[in-house]
Formats: sequence, structure tokens, C-alpha cells
Amino acid sequence: MPAETVHLDGHIVDSLTLSKVLDIILRDGGHYRITEFKIGATRADLSHAAISVSAGTSEALEQILRQIQQHGASRVTGDAKTEHAPADGVFPDGFYVTTNLETSVRLSGKWLPVEPIEMDCGVVIKASDLAIAAECHPMHHVCKGDRVVVGSDGVRVSPLDHAESPGVFGFMGSSVSTERPKELVVAAIVEAMQAARKENRKILFVGGPAILHTGAGPQLEAILAAGWIDVLFAGNALATHDIEQALFGTSLGVGMDTGAQAAHGHENHLRAINTIRRAGSIRNAVDLGILTSGIMHACIVHKVPYVLAGSIRDDGPLPDVITDSVIAQDAMRELVRGVGVALMVATTLHSVATGNLLPASVRTICVDSDADTVVKLMDRGTHQAYGLVTDCEFFLKELAARLPGVRQ
Amino acid sequence: MPAETVHLDGHIVDSLTLSKVLDIILRDGGHYRITEFKIGATRADLSHAAISVSAGTSEALEQILRQIQQHGASRVTGDAKTEHAPADGVFPDGFYVTTNLETSVRLSGKWLPVEPIEMDCGVVIKASDLAIAAECHPMHHVCKGDRVVVGSDGVRVSPLDHAESPGVFGFMGSSVSTERPKELVVAAIVEAMQAARKENRKILFVGGPAILHTGAGPQLEAILAAGWIDVLFAGNALATHDIEQALFGTSLGVGMDTGAQAAHGHENHLRAINTIRRAGSIRNAVDLGILTSGIMHACIVHKVPYVLAGSIRDDGPLPDVITDSVIAQDAMRELVRGVGVALMVATTLHSVATGNLLPASVRTICVDSDADTVVKLMDRGTHQAYGLVTDCEFFLKELAARLPGVRQ
Amino acid sequence: MPAETVHLDGHIVDSLTLSKVLDIILRDGGHYRITEFKIGATRADLSHAAISVSAGTSEALEQILRQIQQHGASRVTGDAKTEHAPADGVFPDGFYVTTNLETSVRLSGKWLPVEPIEMDCGVVIKASDLAIAAECHPMHHVCKGDRVVVGSDGVRVSPLDHAESPGVFGFMGSSVSTERPKELVVAAIVEAMQAARKENRKILFVGGPAILHTGAGPQLEAILAAGWIDVLFAGNALATHDIEQALFGTSLGVGMDTGAQAAHGHENHLRAINTIRRAGSIRNAVDLGILTSGIMHACIVHKVPYVLAGSIRDDGPLPDVITDSVIAQDAMRELVRGVGVALMVATTLHSVATGNLLPASVRTICVDSDADTVVKLMDRGTHQAYGLVTDCEFFLKELAARLPGVRQ
Amino acid sequence: MPAETVHLDGHIVDSLTLSKVLDIILRDGGHYRITEFKIGATRADLSHAAISVSAGTSEALEQILRQIQQHGASRVTGDAKTEHAPADGVFPDGFYVTTNLETSVRLSGKWLPVEPIEMDCGVVIKASDLAIAAECHPMHHVCKGDRVVVGSDGVRVSPLDHAESPGVFGFMGSSVSTERPKELVVAAIVEAMQAARKENRKILFVGGPAILHTGAGPQLEAILAAGWIDVLFAGNALATHDIEQALFGTSLGVGMDTGAQAAHGHENHLRAINTIRRAGSIRNAVDLGILTSGIMHACIVHKVPYVLAGSIRDDGPLPDVITDSVIAQDAMRELVRGVGVALMVATTLHSVATGNLLPASVRTICVDSDADTVVKLMDRGTHQAYGLVTDCEFFLKELAARLPGVRQ
Repeated sequence: MPAETVHLDGHIVDSLTLSKVLDIILRDGGHYRITEFKIGATRADLSHAAISVSAGTSEALEQILRQIQQHGASRVTGDAKTEHAPADGVFPDGFYVTTNLETSVRLSGKWLPVEPIEMDCGVVIKASDLAIAAECHPMHHVCKGDRVVVGSDGVRVSPLDHAESPGVFGFMGSSVSTERPKELVVAAIVEAMQAARKENRKILFVGGPAILHTGAGPQLEAILAAGWIDVLFAGNALATHDIEQALFGTSLGVGMDTGAQAAHGHENHLRAINTIRRAGSIRNAVDLGILTSGIMHACIVHKVPYVLAGSIRDDGPLPDVITDSVIAQDAMRELVRGVGVALMVATTLHSVATGNLLPASVRTICVDSDADTVVKLMDRGTHQAYGLVTDCEFFLKELAARLPGVRQ
Repeated sequence: MPAETVHLDGHIVDSLTLSKVLDIILRDGGHYRITEFKIGATRADLSHAAISVSAGTSEALEQILRQIQQHGASRVTGDAKTEHAPADGVFPDGFYVTTNLETSVRLSGKWLPVEPIEMDCGVVIKASDLAIAAECHPMHHVCKGDRVVVGSDGVRVSPLDHAESPGVFGFMGSSVSTERPKELVVAAIVEAMQAARKENRKILFVGGPAILHTGAGPQLEAILAAGWIDVLFAGNALATHDIEQALFGTSLGVGMDTGAQAAHGHENHLRAINTIRRAGSIRNAVDLGILTSGIMHACIVHKVPYVLAGSIRDDGPLPDVITDSVIAQDAMRELVRGVGVALMVATTLHSVATGNLLPASVRTICVDSDADTVVKLMDRGTHQAYGLVTDCEFFLKELAARLPGVRQ
Repeated sequence: MPAETVHLDGHIVDSLTLSKVLDIILRDGGHYRITEFKIGATRADLSHAAISVSAGTSEALEQILRQIQQHGASRVTGDAKTEHAPADGVFPDGFYVTTNLETSVRLSGKWLPVEPIEMDCGVVIKASDLAIAAECHPMHHVCKGDRVVVGSDGVRVSPLDHAESPGVFGFMGSSVSTERPKELVVAAIVEAMQAARKENRKILFVGGPAILHTGAGPQLEAILAAGWIDVLFAGNALATHDIEQALFGTSLGVGMDTGAQAAHGHENHLRAINTIRRAGSIRNAVDLGILTSGIMHACIVHKVPYVLAGSIRDDGPLPDVITDSVIAQDAMRELVRGVGVALMVATTLHSVATGNLLPASVRTICVDSDADTVVKLMDRGTHQAYGLVTDCEFFLKELAARLPGVRQ
Repeated sequence: MPAETVHLDGHIVDSLTLSKVLDIILRDGGHYRITEFKIGATRADLSHAAISVSAGTSEALEQILRQIQQHGASRVTGDAKTEHAPADGVFPDGFYVTTNLETSVRLSGKWLPVEPIEMDCGVVIKASDLAIAAECHPMHHVCKGDRVVVGSDGVRVSPLDHAESPGVFGFMGSSVSTERPKELVVAAIVEAMQAARKENRKILFVGGPAILHTGAGPQLEAILAAGWIDVLFAGNALATHDIEQALFGTSLGVGMDTGAQAAHGHENHLRAINTIRRAGSIRNAVDLGILTSGIMHACIVHKVPYVLAGSIRDDGPLPDVITDSVIAQDAMRELVRGVGVALMVATTLHSVATGNLLPASVRTICVDSDADTVVKLMDRGTHQAYGLVTDCEFFLKELAARLPGVRQ
């Protein structure tokens, strides 16, 4: 029976990495024999395991090895293999598919980091006389002739450390229950945002229009104005209803001070869009004094870059909306560099899209009133994601109250 | 084709009563001819309609007439018919089944109000030499030989007025969306509670254990202490986790100040129950100085009557729990008399049970984080019910902040 | 106090139109006096009401009149007013915003139908020497100088008849409960599809990727192959996972015959996309014999037109995906002409987008396992929409079993 | 710093037991040093670890040791300590609280199994001249003077093996997504039921009234008639709507063959209850020929024992309902002995109550259309529970189709 020995290093017991690797071997019909095992005696010590993996056929063995490699099992390996892309936007067959974990490829005996890491991409080798680099690219970026890594030889993935210290995020773990004290979670999010500030990592906010419909727009505006957000991702709807509220005092036609449907209110969001289209852009509307408050106004005034990504359910859309989804995705890709904390509030589409672009090491918090949405976001392999099933209205109110310097 | 003329009076257009009656006639295969119609010219004026209803057979006609009668269509009628109950806890065949709308029965040519009205009950006629009364009783109350109304002759139901003035409750209508400004709804609830106070009607609070798990116990305790609640309905779980928190600072073992699972925490609720069982009752535990804070403590100290109704998922239970569901229901039945506002927070079982006991005229507000639960509660024919899909934690915090005199 | 008389005609009692109009008048602070009222004596007869509406100011009155006009209240009116569009993609201020109900505008004393009606658009008057037409256009279609209707003078909206005969769709009404016999609903959908066939109206299917993940792809393929679907709207995900399943037997890497995660399965959807990108298009892949089964294959073979609309969460995407949301929306706009029945299964984004484009008269059925999604779809003003909270897997299986001629 | 060495044996890596134990030590502020470690080289081999645990104080250490003991960490130990119960229904302070895992206590140097194991109970030692036994009892069972285990000395808990072989239940794991192929899960449930049959273990069905409302009653009746269910747990509602359907063809008044509200339908369930109350019991109604079909009829005819447990939302109730929740719980406690598979369909209350009574080794499958309910059930520490978010109607239809011998 074909066999090969792999090595696992790190906090492999408490991170569950060892369990997961053994589980995959058995699940896929293989067998294992642990030939060496040195457990870290204390929390700080690293463990090491050597595992001999065997399977019925070489193909089956190869499949298992490639699977467990994605969880950090390293093979004694040669260099990565590459092939040329056969056409623009097309990878060679058998291209290596990235995870969102820290990854390196071995070329000429040296390990190169793959940067910026993003899941479901390919690895393109860019070499000049002076330098060689392993770049992570989505499929549509690749150009005919690019050297792309194929197979999994010479690829190494580092598992996430079991990083969480005891505390609120620790206890949240896999749970998304509404039946927990959520104020504590908000306090922990504030700490995470403050920690990101200290480490010079950016804070990304991804939001949906329910923020406006529930009347929480002013809270988000105040958080932006206080400088707590570095990047905003949203769609036409959030921006439109924000501008509707700034211009007409309604959101989807519902008066924010009365809760009642305003006369003609349902038209207000179209008139808001038309007004901005006439001005040419949100920035122009601010400059012309047409738009004087709200979330988008705060972005312009406080120089917070944003991506408004289009979707087929958009009215208008606003001129600032990037209607081509591939271009919008690339714009988001640029702005996620350096993000340390991502808050995703009341939007499935934009949250999932953003989650796809983030490395596993970014601390991600998903807030939605629908448990299904939160579960869906958490299921997508975003490793450091925490879900909070609650109201965006009360969440943002509580967050604004706890963040230092937010004017209420 | 057999036909009969019925009359509809009141705000029958804007309350949708007329539409509903015509709808039922057609749905059940009948035909109608509107023979008289006088519409109220302004909002204050009443309307009147005379409708000739016909159907293929007398039986079909009778069925239609009985249906629409429950929405206020009155027949030219003689006295109600009665039969004797054949056994204890058994109604005669064909007993009239009550709705939760104001109802009268005609006896000896006089209309008697059925009191206290409750849906899914029977009407028992209690007559002495001096007086005659029409009482509403659940099935298990009836005694062999009681005179019970059968059929629908001589029964009159008054439709609810289209009572809502424009305002927040008006806009909530059928909607239970999370995507609304909920602070406005909380403000409206505060107004409704203040109005009930002025009218000397009681305020009933029905709650589930998530109030404790989310850390909102102190908010409810403060609302009770400020005198805003006249009756509390709950189960073993709310009381147990409240006492657990008072004794150990945890709820289901989760520390309310840390969010973390306390060591041995999952045992704390059992130790809390055991402590109270040893004391003999919650009141004894308060008197002995064992229980010194929390919701149940506030009920004892502020003399707020409560029913703790048992269920098969209970641990213990606490000695104050009424384990027999029929006895518990009767205890609740007593205490709902005079209730004007019912707040139902984070419990399906107790909310539905309470809803079953309330007249349609009680303003009922259901708060739950799960839209399904709220929809289920609203679907059960409770007429003046408003659903709010949100967190009980944030809801109670906001309510406590807005109710005058609540110490925070 | 300024006053004006409007007229309401049709099945205004049982369609609730009269109630709604009176409700709006009061809600917005107006008063009414019903000056004439002739109720239809039987179901077939039309009713007529003349209502004198008054309000505190002319502006307030005008606002009320414009609101109720959208529900069919007609004013004695002159011609519609128009203004020229100030720029490409910008309507003149005060442009009339369409509903999804049948609408006409009055020009030179003649009523012209607005076609094709779509909500949240403007009305552009296209006149030549020979003809004049009122066209409904979304904002981005309008060109500088186009004549656009402004205000609401000379605009008439026809309320939907209370069309539902008694039956399953009648009973579904506002309810989306899972606690109903759903097989009956499936039977009613089959009838509706057969009725659309007889009337030569198209059947539109809008679907999400959960159809594939749950293993229901073959059912949808069979329904397509039997000719029951005329147009398909979906996104990159549905097509990708369909092709993944055709090429690799997995969906998101889960083996459809085992339920287990296939080795490397999570990469399969990327390899599927890459394969089609290499072929150039789905059609090419079919022609080259690469793609030989599945939903997209059935569309190609059976000549069912489709729109695959892009979104920012897409991998790849497939070359057939229209990545620009405005262009995709326009492609959908073309294909919804003549649709009589729309089935929307397991997708919020595409369902809402499609609902925005459909006239109110199209019978729309939304199927989703999440009640929140269904409620959201139903709340968006799509008038003849019915929601079904259930599994797409079992729904499609049941539908395939009941549709004549579907091979299983 | 106080320290003590504990031992862990078994499949402690792949069952995650080791990880969990180390996690608890750190979480509660302790430190560990792994002093011995022998990993099982292959899947079949057991592992062993000796862990020296230390903490700041003896109390803190003791707390940690008691926590990890519940996950199988065994201390070098003397006999269990016992105290006498101070009153009927009251445990001594510090009573040991059971988990639902296999447990033994050490008395006079011998290990006695605690039977029947149930979580959240106490351990009562019953000794006679001839024998000594450790019995698991809920709080209300204990009698004054009973010897009850206190503290955790001399108590040993066996962790569940990582029993799942690869397969459908393996893949379901923590997932409750609707986006999975559910037919495969139904097939796996059928296998589990067949396996239970072979091992002479009972199959328990716990059901809610939505089974009737959705029209799935006949499916469950057929499964019962084919002998696939050994015990039925339900409430008044399931039995009432079942009998309503048998007597009147409706469920909550909705005609199962039409989907429409029957005339007077909402009264039918009350008339059904009244009929059975008059007959005296369900069995009498069957014997008298009044009840001739349905689920309850099948239970009587096929001698399937059932518990109908009362709740405060019940109408009536039926005479067979056990209205006292403590007595009902005890009746359920009797019948869960010997259960190998528990199916819980469309009921939160009865599912949670039953889950509380079952040992961790019983394979439990929860089916509900609401993901929140399933998550709630899974979160309650029932170890071998699998959640399926789907329709009970389609689930039972599919189950009936796949179970051998079910007549459809």
C-alpha cells in the first residue's frame, strides 16, 4: 500500500489541527500511523507529529495528502511546479487553489510567501532578473503565458494558531445564539477596534440598508465622524437610503421621527438618486451644498474611502456605484489590504463578498437579526469570524455609546 | 335557494368587516345581494348594510350564517338555545364556541353579556331567582347538568372598532419586520402603558429565560420595582435563572459580568432550585434573607402576583411552580381580569397560552428575536397584537430607559 | 379648507381598495365625506364611490390626492404635464414615479397606456408624426431632452381586481407559514403553470444555488427538458455548481450521491469555471461535448433563454455571466415581457430584482426555506406574490412529480 | 502552587477530549504540564496522557479538576462521599450533578455504574445486605435520609468515543444547513432505525402538531402501523388535531384535501376534544368505534405506548393527557429506557424535554423547519444529536417512502 510521511508542527493539539488531519485521512479512506509525537508540555511549547499516511492507490494517497496539506501537514517536498496560463483569464488545468491561510511556495529551493493571500485564487510566479515573487490572483486577473503553480508540490500552508485567549470572543466560539449577554460582545468589539488602531491595522465596515431603515444611520455617521472606520463597503441601497434620509428625512419612505409612511415617501429614494445623478456624484453633491449630512457625507468629509458595489436589484443607481461586479470586486480587493478588523452589519451579499477577499487572520464580526444569515456567513470558511444575532439598530447604538470620542 | 338577511353595523368599511363577511360568503360557496347600504359619510359616522345571503342548501346557508355571525353579522333572532352538559368537563354536542370578541346571548328576549370573554370556551347560563348571567367557561370547568348555549341562535358578536388612530401602532400593523425603527415602537409601548395606568387597567408581563441569559434581568427587576408591572407570568426557567443569578451571578452557568462559562456553572441552576426547595418557597427564601435581589425578589417585595407554570422540560422544579397545567391555566385566568396591556417577551409557550386567555381588546405586544415565533403568535387570532422582532436584552434596556421612575 | 372630489370604481369593497383609500386620507391628516356610494349588489357588480377629500392646506391635499391616485382614485383631470430630461440618465424634478399597476396617461384628451409597466420608473412620451406612445423607462434609460411626465395630473392607475377565486392561492393569502399542507400548494402551482400555457404566457424560473447543493438539480433539469420553463434567471453560482455537478458530481465539493465532502471538492467549482472559460462559453462547452448534462445544458439544448447576472461574491465568473448589473437588469427587462407565472426558488437577490421588474398582474410564487426571506419578498409591493416556506429540494421533487410529461 | 496529576485514556485525540481538557484548564486560569503522552499509532489504538494541573489556590485547582473530570479526566481517587438528603425532594448541599455520559462512582473501593444515567440529576446510593447500587434520580425523587453523592471524589465519567464512522451522519456534524442534500440524510436515518431494530433497541418518536397541519398525519400513521415506532411522546395538540382530522377531515379547521378553512373549522378541534372527553379516553373512543383512523388510533391498535404531556396552552385537554408536568416527565423517564434512536419532529418543547432525559449515547435526530429551533436543541448538550432544517411534511413523506414495509 503506497505511503508517505508528513509532518505537523505548532499548537496542533489545542488548535484541533491534529484531530482534523487524522479525521480527513480516515474520512477519505486512508490509514495513519503516528511515528513520532512530541507534545508541547505547556501552553507555550510547540508540538510535533510525524504521520505515515497510506491509502489503497497512489491516486487516493495523493488526494489525501493534498487535503491535509491545506491544514498544515507538510510533505518533504521539492519545488512547486508551474504551467503557463493558456489564455487570458484562464488558469492551466490542475492549478493550485489557495486557501485564506498564510501560504508559501518553494522555488529553486527557497520558500516564497504568497501575497496577498486570498481564498479560491491561483498563485502566479512573477520573476525578473532581480526578484521573484509569488502572487495570489483571482482567475480573471491571469494573463496568457503567466506562470501558474499547479498541483500541490512545494506548497506549504500555515495553520492558524489557536490564538484566542480566554475572554468574550473565546466564549462566542461557534455560537451565534441570541440568548447571550450581547453588551459584553460589544465591549469586546470595542477592544478589538482599539487593538487594531494600536497595531496600525485598518477597520473595515460593511453595511446594509437596514441600518437606515431602523434609524441607526446617525449612529454610524457619528462613528465615522469620530474616525473609527477606515474603509466602507456597501451597495447602492445603503447610500441611497442614507441620502434619502439626509434630503427628505425618510428611509424607504418611512419617516424616521414618526415611524409612519410619509406621503409619497416611497418615491423619495428615487428622487434622492435622481438628485445625485444630476449633481454628477456624491462628492459633487457635498461640494454643491446639496448633501449636508449622513453616512456618505461623513465619508466624503472625513476622507473615508468607500466602494459602492452594484447589484441587479438597484434602482438608479447612484453615479458612484461600480456597476460591474468584477471591477467592484477588484476595488474592494485593493482596500482590504491592511485590514485588521472587519465589521459586517445587516448585509448578506456584501458580507459574503468581503469574507471571500479577507485572509483568515482578520478578525471578522458578523451582525444580523437573522440567525440563518449569520450561520451562512460563518460556514464559508472565514476562520476568525464571530456571529452576533441581533438588531443592527441596537448594536450600533451600543457600539457608538462605548467607542471613545463618538459624539451622540 | 334558501336565503336569509343579516345586518352589519359599525365602522364596517374601514375595519374591513364588510369585506371579510362578503369574502366568507363567497369562500363557502354562498351568494350575496346587498339590499341596503348606508355608508358613514365621515370617519365618525357609522355604516349599515343589509345583506341577503343565499346558498344551495339550508345546511350550507346555516354554516355561512354562523361563520359571518362571528364577525358581527347579526340575524333576526330569537333566544339562544341551551342544553345540559352530559357529564363533568363535557359540553353538549353542538355547543357554541366563543371567540375573544365582545359577545352577548339573548335569553327571554334580553341580551346578556358573556363574561369574562375568552376564546374557545362555551357559554354557561347561571340563573337564580334573582338574576341570570351568561358565563364563559373552558371545557374542564363545566359540570354535569349545567345549561350550555348550543348553536348560534341568539348569539351576537361585536366586531372590534378600527380603533387605531394614526401613529406607531398603526404603522406596525401586520408587519413584524426587523427593518423598522424600533425605538419609536418602544416609545409607543411606554405610552400604552401610561394610558393603561390612567384607565386603571393592569399591565401584564409574560417572560422567558432569555431575559436572564442575555443579562437583562436587572432591567426587568428595575421596571418591576418602579411599579410598572401588575402581574407576572413565567415558567420555572425564568425564575430559576433569576435566582441562579441572584445567588451565583450566572445564568445557565454563564457569568453575566464576563460572558464566560463559570467553573461548574451549569450546575448552578440546580443548586439554586435545591436551595429554594429547602427553604420551602421563594417567599420563605426572601424572608430568610437567602434571596436578596432579582426579578422574583422584586415580585415578593413589591407584592406583584405571579404564576409560574410548569412544563415537562423543567428541572426541579421550584416549589412555587404550579405543575398541573390545568390548575396553572386557571390561576392565569384569574389574574388576566382587568389587564389592559400585555407585554410578552422571549417566550413562545407562555405567550401563546396567555394570548388564548385574553379578550381581543387587550393591547398585546410580542417581542422575540425569532420572526417565526412572532408570526406564530400573531397568527393565532389575537386581534390587537403587535409583533416586534428584536432582542429582549436591548428591548428591556430601552424600555427601562424610557419608563418614568425606573432606576438604572 | 381646500377640497376635491375623486372617484373610485370597480370591486372596491372586496379588493379593500375603498378601505385603503380612506385609511390613507386619515393617515395623512385629511378628512373625507362620501358623497355618492353605489355598492355592487352581487359579486359581479361593480361599485362606485365619490369621495370629497379635504385637508388643511392645498399642498397637504395635493399630497393625499397623489397618494390615493396610486390606488385608483381618479381625479377629474386635464392632460398630463411633461418636462424635458435635463441630462442623460436624469429625470426632471418632480417626475411621476410609476407603480406596477396598469397605468394610463392623458395626452391631448386621450388616455394612452403606459407600457411595459414597471414600478419605480418614469413615463417618457415618444411622439412622431404618426403616433404617440407613453413608455415606461428606468432612470438610466432616459436621454437628455426626452419628454417625461411630471406631477400626477392626467395619470390614472387601475387597481388590481380582487381576482382570486376561492382555492388554494386564496387561502395562502398573506400567510407564509410552514404549518400548512404544502402539497396542495404545489398542485395549485401546477394548475397556474398549465393556465399560463393555455394563455400563451411565459413561465419564468428564478433560482439560487441551493437547488444544486440540496441535490435538486436533476429535478429542475427534467422540468426544463419537459418544456415547462421559458426563461431562466440566475447568477454565476447556480450555473457554476450545476456545471460542477455535471463535470465532477459534486456541489460546493459535496458529493451528491454520498453527502460527503469529496477530496479536493471545494476546488471543483473553480475548476468548472476554468473549464468553461477555456471553452469560451457554456454553449461552446456543450458544442464541444464537454458539458453533457445539467440545468445549463438543458437550457442550451432546449433553447431556453437565460440571464446569468453577476454579483460581487462571484468566483470567476463564467463567461456567460453579465457582470454589469445595469446591463444584466436590462437583459432581464427584455425577457420578462409576456411572463404570466414567475417561480422564484431559493434566492433573495435574484427574486427581489425580478420582482422589481414584473407587473403586479404576474402570478409570483416565492419558495425559500427561510421565512424571513419570504416575508422580505412579499413586503416589496409585489401584488400577486405567494410565499412558501419550504425546502427547495422537496419542492422541486414534488413539482417535477406533478407536472405532466416530466421524466424522473 | 497546588498541583495534581490526572489521567486521560481512550481516543482522546480524535474525540477532541484532550483539546477540550487543556482548553478548560487554561480557560479557568490554570496551567498544565503534560508529563506522559502515548499516542495511539493507528485508529484502533488508545492513547494515554498524564497531565499535571496547577492553579493559584487549592479551591481554583479543585474547581478545574471537577470540570475536567466531567470530560473523563480521572483523578487518583478514594471513595465517593455521601450525605443524607435533608428533606423529601431536596438534595444535600454540594450534591454531585450528573452529565448524560456513562458514569461510575467508587464505593468501598469498587466502581458502581450509575443507572439509568440522565443529566442534571443526583446519585443516590441504595444499599441492602445483599447489594449496593448507584441510582440516578431527579431532584423531586429523593427522599429524606437518602444517601446522596456529594463533591466529585470517587466519580468517574467516560467520554463518548469518537464513534462516527465516515458517512452521512459524519458529514452532518455540527451543520444544520438547509443547503444540503436531505434525501441522503433520510436514507441514513432509515439505516439507523434498522440498526436499532437489530440491536433490540427502541425507536422513540417525538412529534408536534405541525405534522397534522401540513397533512403529514397519514405518513406518520403508516409508519406506526408498519411497526417502526416503539414509543410516542407528544402533547395535547398533536393528539387533538389528529383526532380532529380523523373525525372531521380538518386540522385547526383547514381542510386537508382542499387547503381551505372549513366552515366552522376552527371549532372542530374543540368538538374533537369534547367527543373524546365524553367517551372517557382515546382507547374507549377506539373501542366504541368512534375513532377509526389516525395516529392515536394506530397507537392503540398497534399497542404503541405513548405519553401525552400537558401544557398551559392546551384546550380541553384530552382525558389521556397527563396534566401534571412532573408526573408526565416521570412517565417519559420510564419509557426512554432502552431507546436507541430518537426522532424529534416539529416540536421544541417536547424535544428539549426528551433530550434532557436521554443518555448521550442515544442517536437523536431533530427535524424542524426553523433553524433557530434546531440550533437550540443541538446546543443543549445532547451529544449525539443531528439537526435537519426542513419541512416535517416532506421529511415524513420521504421517510415513509424509504422505510421497508410502510404502506402508502
